[in-house]
Amino acid sequence: MFLSVEKLVNEIKKDKPDPAAARALQEGLGGQFGEMRTMMQYQFQNFNFRGDAKPFRDIVRGVGTEEIGHVELVANTINILLDGASTAGGKPDQPDTLPLANALDGDGNIHHFLVAAQSSRPVDAAGNPWSALYVYDSGNLVLNLLYNLMLEATGRLQKCRLYQMSKNKAFRSTVSYLIVRDLAHEKAFAKALEVLGVNWGNVLPVPKIDTAKMPEVKELEKKNMHNQQWTFAKDSQMAKIFKGPSPFGDGELETLDGLPEGFEVPQLPMRPEEFAPGLDAGLLEKVGGITGKSSKKEAVA
Amino acid sequence: MFLSVEKLVNEIKKDKPDPAAARALQEGLGGQFGEMRTMMQYQFQNFNFRGDAKPFRDIVRGVGTEEIGHVELVANTINILLDGASTAGGKPDQPDTLPLANALDGDGNIHHFLVAAQSSRPVDAAGNPWSALYVYDSGNLVLNLLYNLMLEATGRLQKCRLYQMSKNKAFRSTVSYLIVRDLAHEKAFAKALEVLGVNWGNVLPVPKIDTAKMPEVKELEKKNMHNQQWTFAKDSQMAKIFKGPSPFGDGELETLDGLPEGFEVPQLPMRPEEFAPGLDAGLLEKVGGITGKSSKKEAVA
Amino acid sequence: MFLSVEKLVNEIKKDKPDPAAARALQEGLGGQFGEMRTMMQYQFQNFNFRGDAKPFRDIVRGVGTEEIGHVELVANTINILLDGASTAGGKPDQPDTLPLANALDGDGNIHHFLVAAQSSRPVDAAGNPWSALYVYDSGNLVLNLLYNLMLEATGRLQKCRLYQMSKNKAFRSTVSYLIVRDLAHEKAFAKALEVLGVNWGNVLPVPKIDTAKMPEVKELEKKNMHNQQWTFAKDSQMAKIFKGPSPFGDGELETLDGLPEGFEVPQLPMRPEEFAPGLDAGLLEKVGGITGKSSKKEAVA
Amino acid sequence: MFLSVEKLVNEIKKDKPDPAAARALQEGLGGQFGEMRTMMQYQFQNFNFRGDAKPFRDIVRGVGTEEIGHVELVANTINILLDGASTAGGKPDQPDTLPLANALDGDGNIHHFLVAAQSSRPVDAAGNPWSALYVYDSGNLVLNLLYNLMLEATGRLQKCRLYQMSKNKAFRSTVSYLIVRDLAHEKAFAKALEVLGVNWGNVLPVPKIDTAKMPEVKELEKKNMHNQQWTFAKDSQMAKIFKGPSPFGDGELETLDGLPEGFEVPQLPMRPEEFAPGLDAGLLEKVGGITGKSSKKEAVA
Amino acid sequence: MFLSVEKLVNEIKKDKPDPAAARALQEGLGGQFGEMRTMMQYQFQNFNFRGDAKPFRDIVRGVGTEEIGHVELVANTINILLDGASTAGGKPDQPDTLPLANALDGDGNIHHFLVAAQSSRPVDAAGNPWSALYVYDSGNLVLNLLYNLMLEATGRLQKCRLYQMSKNKAFRSTVSYLIVRDLAHEKAFAKALEVLGVNWGNVLPVPKIDTAKMPEVKELEKKNMHNQQWTFAKDSQMAKIFKGPSPFGDGELETLDGLPEGFEVPQLPMRPEEFAPGLDAGLLEKVGGITGKSSKKEAVA
Amino acid sequence: MFLSVEKLVNEIKKDKPDPAAARALQEGLGGQFGEMRTMMQYQFQNFNFRGDAKPFRDIVRGVGTEEIGHVELVANTINILLDGASTAGGKPDQPDTLPLANALDGDGNIHHFLVAAQSSRPVDAAGNPWSALYVYDSGNLVLNLLYNLMLEATGRLQKCRLYQMSKNKAFRSTVSYLIVRDLAHEKAFAKALEVLGVNWGNVLPVPKIDTAKMPEVKELEKKNMHNQQWTFAKDSQMAKIFKGPSPFGDGELETLDGLPEGFEVPQLPMRPEEFAPGLDAGLLEKVGGITGKSSKKEAVA
Repeated sequence: MFLSVEKLVNEIKKDKPDPAAARALQEGLGGQFGEMRTMMQYQFQNFNFRGDAKPFRDIVRGVGTEEIGHVELVANTINILLDGASTAGGKPDQPDTLPLANALDGDGNIHHFLVAAQSSRPVDAAGNPWSALYVYDSGNLVLNLLYNLMLEATGRLQKCRLYQMSKNKAFRSTVSYLIVRDLAHEKAFAKALEVLGVNWGNVLPVPKIDTAKMPEVKELEKKNMHNQQWTFAKDSQMAKIFKGPSPFGDGELETLDGLPEGFEVPQLPMRPEEFAPGLDAGLLEKVGGITGKSSKKEAVA
Repeated sequence: MFLSVEKLVNEIKKDKPDPAAARALQEGLGGQFGEMRTMMQYQFQNFNFRGDAKPFRDIVRGVGTEEIGHVELVANTINILLDGASTAGGKPDQPDTLPLANALDGDGNIHHFLVAAQSSRPVDAAGNPWSALYVYDSGNLVLNLLYNLMLEATGRLQKCRLYQMSKNKAFRSTVSYLIVRDLAHEKAFAKALEVLGVNWGNVLPVPKIDTAKMPEVKELEKKNMHNQQWTFAKDSQMAKIFKGPSPFGDGELETLDGLPEGFEVPQLPMRPEEFAPGLDAGLLEKVGGITGKSSKKEAVA
Repeated sequence: MFLSVEKLVNEIKKDKPDPAAARALQEGLGGQFGEMRTMMQYQFQNFNFRGDAKPFRDIVRGVGTEEIGHVELVANTINILLDGASTAGGKPDQPDTLPLANALDGDGNIHHFLVAAQSSRPVDAAGNPWSALYVYDSGNLVLNLLYNLMLEATGRLQKCRLYQMSKNKAFRSTVSYLIVRDLAHEKAFAKALEVLGVNWGNVLPVPKIDTAKMPEVKELEKKNMHNQQWTFAKDSQMAKIFKGPSPFGDGELETLDGLPEGFEVPQLPMRPEEFAPGLDAGLLEKVGGITGKSSKKEAVA
Repeated sequence: MFLSVEKLVNEIKKDKPDPAAARALQEGLGGQFGEMRTMMQYQFQNFNFRGDAKPFRDIVRGVGTEEIGHVELVANTINILLDGASTAGGKPDQPDTLPLANALDGDGNIHHFLVAAQSSRPVDAAGNPWSALYVYDSGNLVLNLLYNLMLEATGRLQKCRLYQMSKNKAFRSTVSYLIVRDLAHEKAFAKALEVLGVNWGNVLPVPKIDTAKMPEVKELEKKNMHNQQWTFAKDSQMAKIFKGPSPFGDGELETLDGLPEGFEVPQLPMRPEEFAPGLDAGLLEKVGGITGKSSKKEAVA
Repeated sequence: MFLSVEKLVNEIKKDKPDPAAARALQEGLGGQFGEMRTMMQYQFQNFNFRGDAKPFRDIVRGVGTEEIGHVELVANTINILLDGASTAGGKPDQPDTLPLANALDGDGNIHHFLVAAQSSRPVDAAGNPWSALYVYDSGNLVLNLLYNLMLEATGRLQKCRLYQMSKNKAFRSTVSYLIVRDLAHEKAFAKALEVLGVNWGNVLPVPKIDTAKMPEVKELEKKNMHNQQWTFAKDSQMAKIFKGPSPFGDGELETLDGLPEGFEVPQLPMRPEEFAPGLDAGLLEKVGGITGKSSKKEAVA
Repeated sequence: MFLSVEKLVNEIKKDKPDPAAARALQEGLGGQFGEMRTMMQYQFQNFNFRGDAKPFRDIVRGVGTEEIGHVELVANTINILLDGASTAGGKPDQPDTLPLANALDGDGNIHHFLVAAQSSRPVDAAGNPWSALYVYDSGNLVLNLLYNLMLEATGRLQKCRLYQMSKNKAFRSTVSYLIVRDLAHEKAFAKALEVLGVNWGNVLPVPKIDTAKMPEVKELEKKNMHNQQWTFAKDSQMAKIFKGPSPFGDGELETLDGLPEGFEVPQLPMRPEEFAPGLDAGLLEKVGGITGKSSKKEAVA
C-alpha cells in the first residue's frame, strides 16, 4: 500500500511560462529514461523480488517510492511552464491574437494545449507515449542492479543536457534537483553492487560534471543531498547497504528514515480558454457549496 | 510525495499454480482498464487539477493512491499463480521433463517464464505492453469524472468476466476484492457527478450482478467494503463528497481516514531454474553478511 | 458522404462456434493485409487523389467502399464463430464448468471473451491492434496502383492459407467469398496498370490456385463474381477501365452499377454471462417501451 | 454494405494554405478523439450489437455512418490547407527558394510533404499514427452509450480549442461544423441514456461555450443543425429515441431521413514538385484517352 | 560497407519440426534482448562513435557484425523448426486433416503459417514486433559499455531459460551456441570496462551456469569458443582490448582475425500449401531457364 | 555471415551543420521506406527464401547487403549534419547562449541532442521509432519482387522530395547518391519480374525525374551508377538476371563482383557539452594507453 503526502519533494522556482522548455522536460517525465520509467521499473522489481535479501529489496522499493514523487514533481514543473503560455500572446503575424494561437508553434508540443489544457502529458520530449516496453525486470539480482545503475546514470546524463538547454528558473530548479537525486540513486545501485564485490575504480559517476558551472546543482550538493537517501518507508533495511563511503569517493552515504518535509503543491488556476475545469456559474455554485467557499464565476470563452 | 507501507491491501488465498489464470489476470494489471491505468490516469488528473475544488481533487488523488496498492496486489497475485508452475511438470509428450517445458504451453504467457522469472509483467492478457495512450486527462472536471466512472465500470465488468473463467482461490480472492473496490470507485465518481446535478436513475452500477452466485464477493460486501473509501492521505476533503446515500441506492457511503491495516506481503523463493535471483554460494554469503542471516546455498541449474 | 445499407454483402453459413477459427479470421479484419486496411488505404487515396483522372479515382473509391462492407462481413462472421462458444463447455479438468472457462484456451484470443463479450475486435490473428502505419498513399498514381495490386494479392494469399486451416462452414463461406472478391480487386488494379501500358504476362494472379480443390470458391466463380465489380456509388466512371478481357486471361470484366441485393444482417442474442447488453428487468422494460415490443427478462449471471 | 455518395457533408471555405493549421487539424482526423476513431468505434459497436433494441443500434449506426463522411470532410480540409503550401515560398535564409523548402518548418508536419504529397495522413496533431487501441466496445449498452457521450464531448472540447488556434477560413469552416455536429451527437447519446432513466441536470453539454464569440458556429446553430440528426440509412428506427426536447434544454430534437444534399468534393491539382500523380506526357495521354479529355502535359520537376 | 559471406556461423542440427519451439526461439530473433537488437544497437553505437578510441569502437563494430550473422542463424533455425510442421498432421478432432490445420494451435505463432509461409518473423516469442525503441546509444562510452554488458548477460540469461524449455536438437544446437557466444560478448564489454578501471570481483558472468548439465554448451566451451572473438573485419584493433585473462577468471581471451569458416546455409523446399514460392509450371520453366537447371513442377494446392 | 569493411559506400560532402536537414534525412534512415527497412526486409526474404532459384535469392541478398552500407551512410550523414550544431549559437532571445539552447528549436528533433549526443537515431523524420511491422515477406516470389519494386520506387520518390527541401551539400551528396542507387534497385526487381514475363511499358521508373535540374544526380548517372549493381558477395548468381538492357530502356545493366572501393569513414570529435564520450583526464589516459597515442584532455562542461 501507499500513502499520498500532499507535499512536493522539492520547490519549483517561479519564472515565465515557456512551452519549449515544457516540451523538453517531458523527457524527464514520460521519456525512456524519465521518472515514470524508474518508478514503474523499481516497483515491478520490488513486487517480483525473489529470495531473502530485504536490504536489497528495500533499496529498490525506497528509491522506487521516491520516484512516484519525482513523477509528481516533474508533472507540476511542466504545468508551471505551461500555465498561461497560450494567453501571453500569439504569433507575430496574427495581430488580433487568438487565445491559443501559439499552440501552433513547433517548438512546443501542441498536445499540451489541445489535449491537456496546458498541463503535463505521459509522453517524452518528441511526443511518443510512455510504453511499458521500457520496464526491465529480469529476476536476476545482479542484472537488475546493473541495469538500474545504468538507468540512473542515463537519466542524469539527459538531465545534464537539459540543464544546458534553458535558463528558465522553474525548469532549472527541477532539473538541478534531479541531477543531484539521480546521483544519489546511482550511488545506491553502485553501492549495492560494491557490497557484492565490484570495485568501480574511477569510471563512475556518469556523467562527470563540473558543478562549479552549475550553481543550482552545487547549492543542493552543499546540503549533502547527493549522499542522502530517505527510506520513503518504515522498517526499511536500506541502511544496511546505503552507508559508509560513497562508491564514487565523494562523501559519506547517509540513510534518512521516512520522508523529507516537502514543499507546497502548486495550485493551478481555471483556464476558460481551455474549458478547464469548464464550470459555468451554476456548477461553480454547486462546487462552492461543497468546498464551503463562496462561488467564483468562470467566464466561458 | 508518497510513502510505501509494507502491507498488501487484501489477502491472497493460497492455491495451486495456474499460468493460464496468471495470463488472464494480467488484464487487471497491464490491461487498458487495469490497475496501472487507473493509477496513472488518476495521478495525472491529480497533478494537473485546475481550480479551487479540493474535495473533487482529493477523490481523484485518494482513489489514485489506492490504485498503486492495487497494482501491487495484482502483481503479487500473478506471482503466486506463477511461482513453481514450471517445475510442477512438463508437456505430456516429454517424459524426461524439463524444468521450464510448460512455458511453451499456449494457454500461458511465455514471457512469464522466459523474461520475468515466473513473475508479473506490465502487459495485458493478450501480451500487449501497457501504453500511456490509455491515460485520459482532458482538464475538464465533468468529463474527467464521467470518464473515470466509465473506466471503473469497465474494469469491474472485466473482473466479473474473469471471475467466471477460473475457480483458483488465489485468483478469485483478488478478483472478488477488485469487483467490490471498483464498485466503491464507481460510486465515488457517480456521487461526484450527482452532487453536480446528475440523477443516475437505475442505469448504474454497471455491471449489475447477482452476488448470491459470487460468495467471495458477497463476503466482502457484508463488511460494507463496497460503500467505504479510505483517504490514503491526511487532510483529505474527500468526505465532503463521499458521504450520504450511495448513488446506486445500496447503502450509506463512508469515508475512512488513512489506510487499512493490510496483510503480509508474500515473499517469493529463489528459483534456480530461472537464475533468479541467481546468486552463487559466494554471493549468497555476501548477502547473508548484510542481512545478518546465515547464508543459504542456491543450486545453479 | 456515405449511406449505410442494412444488408451484408454475402451470406454467412451456419456452423458450430469455433474460437480458434475466430482468432485466425481476425487477420482478415484487423491484420496488416485485412479489410480495415484496404478500406482505410483506398479511402485515403480517394480523398487525397490528385489530377484529372476520375475513372482511376472511381476504381479506388468503389473498391474502397466495398471494403467497408467487407469489414462488416468479417466482423459478423467472427461474431458468429464466437457467439455461445463460452457456454458450450469448459476445460476438461474443470468438471463444474464455469461459463467463461474456455476463454483461457490458448487457441483462441482471450480478449474475445474478456473485453469484447464474444464479438470481433480491431486486431489481427496474433492480437496486435490495427495501426494506421499500414496505410499507404504516396500521391503517385502508378505507385498507388502497384501497391494496391500487391495488397489485394497478399490479402488473397492469406485467405487461401486460412481456407486450409479450418472447415467450419461459417468461416469457409466468408473466406471463400473474399478469395473471389480479392481476385476481382487484383484485376481492377492490374487492369488500371494495363491501360497505362503494363503487360503482366503470366505472373498474375497471385496466388495461382486450383479451385477444383476449393468447391466453395468454385461455386462463386461460376457466378462470374471474380470478374464483376459493383460501383458502390452513382455516377462512377469505373467502367471506363474495368471492362474488356481480364488482365489474367480468365474471362471478361463487368462493371455493375450500384450495389448488390445483399443478405440479412445476423442479430446477436443477449449474453448474460458477458453482461452484454447487461440490462436488468427495469431497463429491459424501458427498452421495450421504445421498441414497442413486450419486454424480455435477461437473467444477470 | 455502404454506398459512396460523391458529396461533402459541408462546404470548405477558401483561404490561404496553412501547414501549421493543417497539422493541428490532424487531431480531428487521426487523433484519439478524432473522426477515424468515432467512425471505427461506432461501426464496431454496430456490428457487435447484442439484443433486441434496434433504435439504440440505429443511433450508433447512423452516427457512425455520418462519421465516415466526417473523415472525408476533415481529410479534404487538410488537403486544402496544404495544397500549394510548399511552393508559396521558402525559409527566409534560403533566397534561391526550393520548391519544398518549407517542409522543414517545425510548425508543420514534414510527412505532409515528404510522404503524402501535400495531403492528409492517418495521424494526430503530434504525428502519432491512429491506433485501434482507441476503439471501445464493451458489449454493455449503458457503458457504450456513456463512453460515446464522453467521446463526443471530448472531441467537441478539442475542436473548441482548435477554433481558438487559427482564423484560417478553411480551417474554421470545418472546425465550426464539427463543433455543431459533435453537439448533436452528444445529445444523441445523452438522450439514449435519458430514455433509460438518467437525468443530466445541468452538467451537460461539455464544453459550455458562448457562441456569441464564435460566429461561424452561431450561423450553423441558427439552422438548428445542433438538434438535427440524419439517419444516413433507410428503415432506421433512430427517431424513436432522437426526438422530443434536447437533453440539454436547448431546443427540440429532429430526426431526418436519409442524408443531406451535400457539397462538391474539391479536386486537387497535379503537383509536379511532389511527383503527384507523377504522370509524364505519355502516361497523361493514355489517361486522357480513358477520360475522353485531351491530355494535359505535366512538367516533371 | 558490408560483405555477405554465404555461410552460417554455426551448424543447425536436424530434428523434427516443432512450432512451439519456433515460437519460443523468436525471442532470440526479434525479442527485446534478441539478435536484431544487439545487431542494431552495436551498429548505431559504431556509426555514432565519438572520440579517438578505435580499439573500443572495433569491439562494438566487430561484435555488432557477428550479430548480423546471428540474426541469420536464428532465422534459419526457426525456419528449420517450422518447415513441414503444418503438413505433419492436424488437430485430433479434424480427422480429414487440412494442410494448415495445426496453424490454429495456440502453442505456436499463427503468423508463422498465415503470414510467413512457415518461416521466421521479426517478432518476439509473444508476437510483438521488434521496435527501434530497444536501441540504446547514449554517446557516453562508459554507459554504452555498461549497457552492452547488461544486454549480453540478459540475452544469455534468456537463452539459458530457453535451453530448459525444449530438447529439440535444432533448437538446442543454436541456443547452446548463443549461450557460449553471449558469454564471449559479456567478456568483451566487461574487459573493456576492466581496462578503464573496473574490477568485477565475482558478480559476473550472469547467469552462472553449471555446464555439466548442459552438454551441448560444454562441447563448445571445450573448443574455447567462450574466450574467442573473431574481428569480422580487417584492420581491427579489437585485440588491444580483447586479450589477456578473462575478466571472469575462466581462461585466456583470444582475438581471431577475420571470420570463421562457417557451415552450409540450409535451403528451404517449395511449400505448395503456402503458395511459396508459388510458381506454376510456366514460371518454373522460366526460372529453370535462368538457373540453367531443368524445371521442376510445383503442384498448386 | 557478414564482414564489416571499414569504408563508406559514398563520399559525404562537407557543409555547415543543419539540424532541420538532419531531422528530414532521418526518413531515409528509420522511415517506413528508409534504409533500415530495405535492409531488414531483404535479409528476411533472403533467410526465408524457398525453392531452387539462387539468382533470384542472390539479387535480394546482394541488394540487402548493400543496404546495410546505406544505413551506415545515412547515419554518418546525419551525424555530420548534427555535429557542432548546438554550439554554433543559440536562440536569438537568449544572449548568454547556452551550449545546447538550439536543441529546443522545433525544426530539429530534440532527441538528436537530448538522447543521442548529436548523432543519428533509429527513427523517421517525424520522430516515430522504426518498427518491424514494416518488414514484408510473404514467401511468394512474385509478390516479394513486386513489393520490393514498389518499395524502392517509394524510397526514391521520397528522396527526390528530400532533394528539393535543402541545398546543404552534405545532405545533397547522400540524397543524390540514394536517388541513383534506388533507381538501380528498382531495375533489379523490375528486371527479375521481366524475366518472369512482365513487360513494364512506360510506367517505370517512378518517379520520372529531370536530372538536368539535379546536377548531383546527373554526375553520378554519368558514371553509369544507375545501371550497375555490385554483388556484395562472392559466388553470387545475380548476374544471370541483372544484365542486358535496362527494363526502363535507359542503358545496359552491369553486375560487378564484390564491393566498391569506398571512402573514409568520418570520425566524430568529442563533444563535452554532450558528455560524449564523457571521459575525464584519468580515463582518457587509460584509453591513450590502449590506443598507444598520447592522451588528450577533454574538458567536462
